[in-house]
Amino acid sequence: MPGATHRLVEMRADLLRLSRDAPDLRALDQDFRHLFRSWFNRGFLVSRPVTWDSPASVLEKIIAYEAVHAIQSWDDLRLRLAPADRRCFAFFHPAMPEEPLIFVEVALTSGIPGSIQGLLDDDRAALSAAEADTAVFYSISNCQAGLAGISFGNFLIKQVAADLAAELPGLKTFVTLSPIPGLMRWIGAEGLAHDPADHAGMRALAARYLLHARRPDGTPADPVARFHLGNGAQVHAVHGGADTSPNGLAQSGGAMVNYLYDLAKVTPNHEAYAQRGEIAASQPVRALAAHNETTRAREKTDG
Amino acid sequence: MPGATHRLVEMRADLLRLSRDAPDLRALDQDFRHLFRSWFNRGFLVSRPVTWDSPASVLEKIIAYEAVHAIQSWDDLRLRLAPADRRCFAFFHPAMPEEPLIFVEVALTSGIPGSIQGLLDDDRAALSAAEADTAVFYSISNCQAGLAGISFGNFLIKQVAADLAAELPGLKTFVTLSPIPGLMRWIGAEGLAHDPADHAGMRALAARYLLHARRPDGTPADPVARFHLGNGAQVHAVHGGADTSPNGLAQSGGAMVNYLYDLAKVTPNHEAYAQRGEIAASQPVRALAAHNETTRAREKTDG
Amino acid sequence: MPGATHRLVEMRADLLRLSRDAPDLRALDQDFRHLFRSWFNRGFLVSRPVTWDSPASVLEKIIAYEAVHAIQSWDDLRLRLAPADRRCFAFFHPAMPEEPLIFVEVALTSGIPGSIQGLLDDDRAALSAAEADTAVFYSISNCQAGLAGISFGNFLIKQVAADLAAELPGLKTFVTLSPIPGLMRWIGAEGLAHDPADHAGMRALAARYLLHARRPDGTPADPVARFHLGNGAQVHAVHGGADTSPNGLAQSGGAMVNYLYDLAKVTPNHEAYAQRGEIAASQPVRALAAHNETTRAREKTDG
Amino acid sequence: MPGATHRLVEMRADLLRLSRDAPDLRALDQDFRHLFRSWFNRGFLVSRPVTWDSPASVLEKIIAYEAVHAIQSWDDLRLRLAPADRRCFAFFHPAMPEEPLIFVEVALTSGIPGSIQGLLDDDRAALSAAEADTAVFYSISNCQAGLAGISFGNFLIKQVAADLAAELPGLKTFVTLSPIPGLMRWIGAEGLAHDPADHAGMRALAARYLLHARRPDGTPADPVARFHLGNGAQVHAVHGGADTSPNGLAQSGGAMVNYLYDLAKVTPNHEAYAQRGEIAASQPVRALAAHNETTRAREKTDG
Repeated sequence: MPGATHRLVEMRADLLRLSRDAPDLRALDQDFRHLFRSWFNRGFLVSRPVTWDSPASVLEKIIAYEAVHAIQSWDDLRLRLAPADRRCFAFFHPAMPEEPLIFVEVALTSGIPGSIQGLLDDDRAALSAAEADTAVFYSISNCQAGLAGISFGNFLIKQVAADLAAELPGLKTFVTLSPIPGLMRWIGAEGLAHDPADHAGMRALAARYLLHARRPDGTPADPVARFHLGNGAQVHAVHGGADTSPNGLAQSGGAMVNYLYDLAKVTPNHEAYAQRGEIAASQPVRALAAHNETTRAREKTDG
Repeated sequence: MPGATHRLVEMRADLLRLSRDAPDLRALDQDFRHLFRSWFNRGFLVSRPVTWDSPASVLEKIIAYEAVHAIQSWDDLRLRLAPADRRCFAFFHPAMPEEPLIFVEVALTSGIPGSIQGLLDDDRAALSAAEADTAVFYSISNCQAGLAGISFGNFLIKQVAADLAAELPGLKTFVTLSPIPGLMRWIGAEGLAHDPADHAGMRALAARYLLHARRPDGTPADPVARFHLGNGAQVHAVHGGADTSPNGLAQSGGAMVNYLYDLAKVTPNHEAYAQRGEIAASQPVRALAAHNETTRAREKTDG
Repeated sequence: MPGATHRLVEMRADLLRLSRDAPDLRALDQDFRHLFRSWFNRGFLVSRPVTWDSPASVLEKIIAYEAVHAIQSWDDLRLRLAPADRRCFAFFHPAMPEEPLIFVEVALTSGIPGSIQGLLDDDRAALSAAEADTAVFYSISNCQAGLAGISFGNFLIKQVAADLAAELPGLKTFVTLSPIPGLMRWIGAEGLAHDPADHAGMRALAARYLLHARRPDGTPADPVARFHLGNGAQVHAVHGGADTSPNGLAQSGGAMVNYLYDLAKVTPNHEAYAQRGEIAASQPVRALAAHNETTRAREKTDG
Repeated sequence: MPGATHRLVEMRADLLRLSRDAPDLRALDQDFRHLFRSWFNRGFLVSRPVTWDSPASVLEKIIAYEAVHAIQSWDDLRLRLAPADRRCFAFFHPAMPEEPLIFVEVALTSGIPGSIQGLLDDDRAALSAAEADTAVFYSISNCQAGLAGISFGNFLIKQVAADLAAELPGLKTFVTLSPIPGLMRWIGAEGLAHDPADHAGMRALAARYLLHARRPDGTPADPVARFHLGNGAQVHAVHGGADTSPNGLAQSGGAMVNYLYDLAKVTPNHEAYAQRGEIAASQPVRALAAHNETTRAREKTDG
């Protein structure tokens, strides 16, 4: 039946919503999850560029589902898709060809950026794709509530990195510019002094949080960190004053982080993380976090 | 060279603009016109539906080029394309595949409509395509200033009527709902009393204008009438209070007209018009215009 | 991984071959079967016409996989695809877009045919599609040994019947012209007199075989009969001298059968067959089989 | 009208055939030629790869139209298209999308080949495309008799060379392996001694013929030479025993020639040829022809 797959996905979205209040429905979800793991396996997913030439019926879904840096209008969308230094890719399933499952927005840059407002500045001079040395995954959004827990973000980032590397041999670095959604909550819980205007101080707090704050099960406290570290990326750099939007300030005091996808290290990183909980990080971030921990230990001692 | 055809079309658009003030450039235009008549012949044009699944890069041109009833926004565009009772078709040339040349917007209705605001009402219950008995061509717009004088509107309307008739056997009537852009100017020049709120009076004036007002060369005064009558359509019905937009009131005191495309009569109508200047019209419109003419003759006598 | 799905299907084909001699491998096959039932579900299969405009790389597979009436050459293939009264449809899976899974060859005819050589005669005057009142499914072939036991023939025939009915409103009858592969074996086992040149006699034997010969589990002895009766078709007519090829004479003494797909009766037929083992058959075939059974009973008594 | 363009092309093919015996028809052809020059301009032609995945309906035309090295069967065609070291490209016109206008067959090789039988040997180990350093245009065929005199071979070779260079950066040399169809006729007319088994001797004769034999209007005697030299290629190397087919021996005593497309020199070569009749040739070929001419002059003197 055409459309049947999509209807089942929407049915599970309803089920997940209802089962928040009706825990006995959760058992039902096991069958859905088993079925969808089989149906939405990597071999069936098709990655396609999303461009200004894509159908409007697909693009309106990109506007609706963008979860990280909201798209305000069709003009705003055009600025994310049409310039020479912008790309977007989505996974589709052949039985739901008009429904993106997940999409990633990419900026092509010269060097690794440290500010989302700078990256998205409409007035920048667009780089030609051939000049870029860095691909920045600055937003990744799931589209289907009914596919919660069926993960493909991992595959999408690796596929897009491989496709871009083949198309643009000048690209040497694949990196994110990511929010740190749990930072301010952790700072509050820890009762730490902080000042968003003190970028160095925020960087130090962010490094400490990302490398040392853990959940009871030992995994990192930050959900975005869990996603990228689980994919085999490493914490490459942290920035203060990097997201000055109201939401950015509220969540992370303006701090952001670059996770680096070094294709040669993704597999060992992933294994060290999965087996031993090790968090891969660059030397500078490690130093920043360590110094900060030391300071903090001394403060505790002194206090 | 990809893009070369489009660049030549734009070059002619520039030339036409410049030659308004530089008449000696007009001779140059003869070569363009000869070339484009050959290049943009009917056999090379491809008619394609324009839908909400069309590329955004094409749709933004539809918004930009709509010349009759302006499209205000992407939401407005969706209302022209997505409902089950709306269609749009454009001609494309294979060497300019992303540039519509001309497009026509169609409403599927039950019966012939007499009000553009009623036809475009967002709150109407959309008809299913199978229920419709009438296809209304309510807007036709050229997209390329550089193709002025190379006509394809004629072919597009006939192609679309044939395609819709094949797809939807329930369609019996193919008709326009057209502006009468020269009506108020003519009323003014003739010094006639009129009142937009008097729909019967406006209908009578419109009928008289469409059937009797002529240019010095004998062709109808109204440019839209020349287009549809030249295609072989006939004046089917006139309506007062049919376009209550500021532009509709200014141009035609709110009056509009249905031109009927009766596929069996298109060829004889066209020939009678082309050879003898005969204007095909329905009996009621003819009666309305004649009565009006008689009254006017009597008024003149009495005066 | 592109191609991974196809490699898994081929892996199972190998496994099935090996497990004939190594029964302990059969347990392994359960996992494959479970996986493929999920992956190759009806919702993911796409039916596409196979025409003379299809890729040669697909067409060579049609030549290779045709299992019922061999295609001798590319010229022979063209005769199956290109004439106005011939159609072919296949199911494809989106993860194996160049590999047909199953295909059906269709002849459009006026009336129900009773001879495969007549149907495939190169010298016939091809009917225009609009003149046809009958669609004859004269060959249905599976392409993937690795998908044995994952059935889609049922879906394909119903999909094709629905698509053809929508495209060609003149089609009133959907019928097969099928081999009776077990007939001669049964005649031999039963020790019955027969003469391929006696068409009436062969028809009677065929009717009796199709309606009364059963396997120990109560299902029909003939495998093609099991397929079509299981789909909800009925035995409509039997013919002698209908397949005079060496294979046709060897298998069934030249007899063939039309199974009728009456879309209104497919569901009740299927249920009566599945639940009570009832074989749907036309009155004439039933009479033929009954008379024959009676005669046979009498012969037995007399004997 | 769909198909109208193709019908006009076929009409001209008929006209050209008829006008051989009816010279007064030739004037009529001027209008066709003028029209087709406009319609089949470079900007409208689309180059497309022809592969084993192309529609059979297109491929059967490739078999039919191959004019240089006949394709014997579909298996033979597969050997021209499917191996990793084979390519084929054709020009199509959007109004005749299923009719190739002209196509070129390409072999990817390591080094410049000197034998067509070696090049087409089915038993060779196919090179991977990435290993190749040379693209050999070994056959170029026009498909439409009705487009005689409307030339696009020039454009096709340059387009294909540019496309291949972009796709396969390892390709350094673009060269033909071409017949010398007028060689034996010229040898006969000149009354020269020759021996196909004497490859050195045949090479010398071929070099002399290609560089010095001229028509009354000063252009080269050989038609294939006129085509490639007119495109800006140069005579790069000549080979004896290079085409040992009956046709190759009859036309050119087995000799063949490589014309080199050096993209940096194509324009100056073309201009020197068009304006001053200069034939570009490599130093070795030039030496071979000069020596030969000298010998011949001496022979004449001695004689």
